[in-house]
Amino acid sequence: MPQSDTQNRKFILAERPRGEPDRNTLRLVTEDLPRPGRGQMLLRNEYLSLDPYMRGRMSDAPSYAAPVEIGGVMVGGTVSQVLRSDVTGFAEGDWVVAFGGWQDYALSDGSGVINMGKAPEHPSWALGVLGMPGLTAWAGLTQIGQPEAGETLVVAAASGPVGATVGQIGKILGCHVVGIAGGPKKCTHVVETLGFDACVDYKADGFPEALKAAVPDGIDIYFENVGGAVLDAVLPCLNPLARIPVCGLISQYNATSLPDGPDRLNFLMGQILRKRMTVRGFIVFNDFGHLYPEFASTVGAWVRQGRIHYREEVIDGLEQAPSAFIGLLRGEAFGKRVIRLAG
Amino acid sequence: MPQSDTQNRKFILAERPRGEPDRNTLRLVTEDLPRPGRGQMLLRNEYLSLDPYMRGRMSDAPSYAAPVEIGGVMVGGTVSQVLRSDVTGFAEGDWVVAFGGWQDYALSDGSGVINMGKAPEHPSWALGVLGMPGLTAWAGLTQIGQPEAGETLVVAAASGPVGATVGQIGKILGCHVVGIAGGPKKCTHVVETLGFDACVDYKADGFPEALKAAVPDGIDIYFENVGGAVLDAVLPCLNPLARIPVCGLISQYNATSLPDGPDRLNFLMGQILRKRMTVRGFIVFNDFGHLYPEFASTVGAWVRQGRIHYREEVIDGLEQAPSAFIGLLRGEAFGKRVIRLAG
Repeated sequence: MPQSDTQNRKFILAERPRGEPDRNTLRLVTEDLPRPGRGQMLLRNEYLSLDPYMRGRMSDAPSYAAPVEIGGVMVGGTVSQVLRSDVTGFAEGDWVVAFGGWQDYALSDGSGVINMGKAPEHPSWALGVLGMPGLTAWAGLTQIGQPEAGETLVVAAASGPVGATVGQIGKILGCHVVGIAGGPKKCTHVVETLGFDACVDYKADGFPEALKAAVPDGIDIYFENVGGAVLDAVLPCLNPLARIPVCGLISQYNATSLPDGPDRLNFLMGQILRKRMTVRGFIVFNDFGHLYPEFASTVGAWVRQGRIHYREEVIDGLEQAPSAFIGLLRGEAFGKRVIRLAG
Repeated sequence: MPQSDTQNRKFILAERPRGEPDRNTLRLVTEDLPRPGRGQMLLRNEYLSLDPYMRGRMSDAPSYAAPVEIGGVMVGGTVSQVLRSDVTGFAEGDWVVAFGGWQDYALSDGSGVINMGKAPEHPSWALGVLGMPGLTAWAGLTQIGQPEAGETLVVAAASGPVGATVGQIGKILGCHVVGIAGGPKKCTHVVETLGFDACVDYKADGFPEALKAAVPDGIDIYFENVGGAVLDAVLPCLNPLARIPVCGLISQYNATSLPDGPDRLNFLMGQILRKRMTVRGFIVFNDFGHLYPEFASTVGAWVRQGRIHYREEVIDGLEQAPSAFIGLLRGEAFGKRVIRLAG
């Protein structure tokens, strides 16, 4: 269903999910097109980014960011066009990166909005390799992972927008790069298109053994965005002085209770001690937002030169967003999943 | 029993302990005084350090250091005197810090031995505040903890040689310092003699609530050398961007199996992510040995100026070492526990 010129459709948070979000979690409502006031602009959202962190915003568990209120528009990054503007630096027809949310239109006072000009080449890439996921990959790898040539880098969710970028940057920096992904199709893509040295299928029988065989020199850096069984397989392979940037734990987001024991909390601490590891969590805009200009010029150049490939999965129609998001949490996305709103 | 001039008593590892070491773990054997060969020196051990890491050396579980062999002399840091020397830089009568082991006499080729000269003021302190525990405290706090004035620092095992030093350095650097120790006597010492702002008794009822009340602004740095129930109480109080230097997990060293569930491994990873924490394990000589000169001058000056107090618990007689070590693991030591061999 295409966007209307007079109405705004938006997904509001109807109830907080217990476990996996379902069709009761979000509700599509329609309202009149909002009118921009003084110092505001009206944005038409062209692409909506779907990202695992959104699951956290649906919950009211303590977190680094405030939850979406019940009845509030679901938050999300968007690539949008400026329709009308009373904000300095933004004019009609400009393409912008904004937090426009899960809706057709949004008002903005320009805070946190990046202007891409009138004719960006791949506007939606600003939601992926050239945006938050790309910055997450580059900053987490370089600032926390601190890779050195010849080291072994293991990347979970290797066909996703963060993992794919981490691994390709790791190759550029001279690492031996092993991906972990779900299913043979993704694994083939990770090796053949993205150029990883190997990719291990976490859904296949014998996954821990296959991972071990793929890292004969152990693991120096593990880029963590999954947790769970993938982390379990990684732990015994970690080398002394391993670094683990932690930007996500997608396998855990829908969990409603802790898994059965034994309790391995102190076991993990013991591994960190004995292997003299560094484990560091980060939230990209909080911790590394100041590095955005360096990221944009460095990674932007690699993308332009074709040294970093980027795979996008475009799904048409705002109404598809909830099911596409549920699938994302299930590991069904293949590449960066975005919703195209214009239809 | 004093040292003999002709015989060497030594504790050898008789069997690997399962759980807590007991009287079958180590065996005292007597042999003729060893004779130094070319390029060697004969040391008479005056003080033997007892340290929690020794429990790890009794095990053959994978670790950063090779285990003591069955039948081998139990390893340990010593303050010793040179009796005869064919090693450049060491002469009869010199006091040295060495890894002389759990025995009356030791041979050495000088590797890793530090010469303290003929008349050090407090020779045994080189096993504590001016030695490995002191370097552990200073380096772990400054290099990983990276304290800033006004931050809250929580120190486990606060009356021990590492914890006491961490907390006093934290005070010098302007932190709000809260110790955790076992029993009212130690807690009083930590506050009244060491000058911590507060100390919480982990053996008392309501310990987690008491800790929470003692850190009204949360915890920015937790210096971890205990694990277990102490860590459990600390976790909910940690602030965003908290740093956790991990130099030990004494509560876990005698564990023979993992505790019952639920499994909190991914819970801990989630805390690290959401709070953007840095958790880093370290082994002091591997990671920070190169900082020893800076440590010695900085912390040495604070000790001479009386800004750092040091409490030592001297136990006479090599034959007391096993029971003193078992007690150390039980938390019975009050201050740095050393064995005086000369008797």
